[in-house]
Amino acid sequence: MSSDLLEKLIKDLTVLPGVGKKSAQRMALYLLDKNKNGAKEIASSLSDALENIQRCKSCRMLTTNDQCIVCEDETRDSQCICVVESPSDLLAIESTGGYKGKYYVLMGRLSPLDNLGPDELGIPQLLETIKRDSIKEIILALSSTVEGDATAIFIKDHVENIKVSRISYGIPIGGELEYVDSNTIARSIISRVEINDD
Amino acid sequence: MSSDLLEKLIKDLTVLPGVGKKSAQRMALYLLDKNKNGAKEIASSLSDALENIQRCKSCRMLTTNDQCIVCEDETRDSQCICVVESPSDLLAIESTGGYKGKYYVLMGRLSPLDNLGPDELGIPQLLETIKRDSIKEIILALSSTVEGDATAIFIKDHVENIKVSRISYGIPIGGELEYVDSNTIARSIISRVEINDD
Repeated sequence: MSSDLLEKLIKDLTVLPGVGKKSAQRMALYLLDKNKNGAKEIASSLSDALENIQRCKSCRMLTTNDQCIVCEDETRDSQCICVVESPSDLLAIESTGGYKGKYYVLMGRLSPLDNLGPDELGIPQLLETIKRDSIKEIILALSSTVEGDATAIFIKDHVENIKVSRISYGIPIGGELEYVDSNTIARSIISRVEINDD
Repeated sequence: MSSDLLEKLIKDLTVLPGVGKKSAQRMALYLLDKNKNGAKEIASSLSDALENIQRCKSCRMLTTNDQCIVCEDETRDSQCICVVESPSDLLAIESTGGYKGKYYVLMGRLSPLDNLGPDELGIPQLLETIKRDSIKEIILALSSTVEGDATAIFIKDHVENIKVSRISYGIPIGGELEYVDSNTIARSIISRVEINDD
């Protein structure tokens, strides 16, 4: 209906995660009808980002320079490396402000069915970095799934004489038990921590 | 974190309806990391649409030409006009395939608090069209809200000797009574229709 350009815009917007045909139509009409400036901004920042954003040479995070801000930051502990699955996981950890080491972004997790092996995840480069920079601790902040577990075990098996840890899994802070799924509760019981007297 | 361009893209994406900071971040990282082609398509079709899409001279629908496809279509009943609030309402009615008349898009509804009066909604132009084209029926397909009702009454009061109808409100087809809100049920009882024997 109405115009091919509108149809095409709606179709293109449906590639966005979580956006179906109805939401795409709502977005397209909103942009063209109510917020042309916003639409211009989106078009131009998308083009800019596509042209200029690349992978960080050291940690594979998205960046505009050769190295990302974290890798360039010399005040951070360069002997601790936190391995995450995606740029959004890195941003989530950064937003806590509590971690002061470096990162390594796998851009996925081991999944042979999707043709994601160690090479696609840059694991050889990670192992090289670990040797070269004499890393002392690797924190695996991977998702709690079969593939996440497999990736963690694979990395653990390929390093020697280094402390390898995993982030803890359990009940979310502030979460009420009755609303937490049974797998998480089971996991939190298995990983229970003894309370000391001190 | 990471890069100004990424930050800007995320911020720009939050203008989209229903998109907050988390979804915008997910969209931006998905586009830059997993679907660069999709991102290019969105950027270019947004720019194309912004440059070329305008309002139809006759019905105010979005279109690439002077007149939209519906207004140009001479097989459609030009003596019946369906008044809608927005381009998406028009598309929704068109998608049923059941309506063969013309349209008029108000781009809003009467709302003095938002500075939306008859002039902003193009009601003078609508009344002119009604006279000039000797329209026989006006179907008001406006939302069932206070403003929608006010808009309907305003239009009804400004035309003479023409059949003015409103779309019916009631229980959705296939909807189960227990899941329908009480206002809709109350309305459907008030607008009950007698069953005839024929």
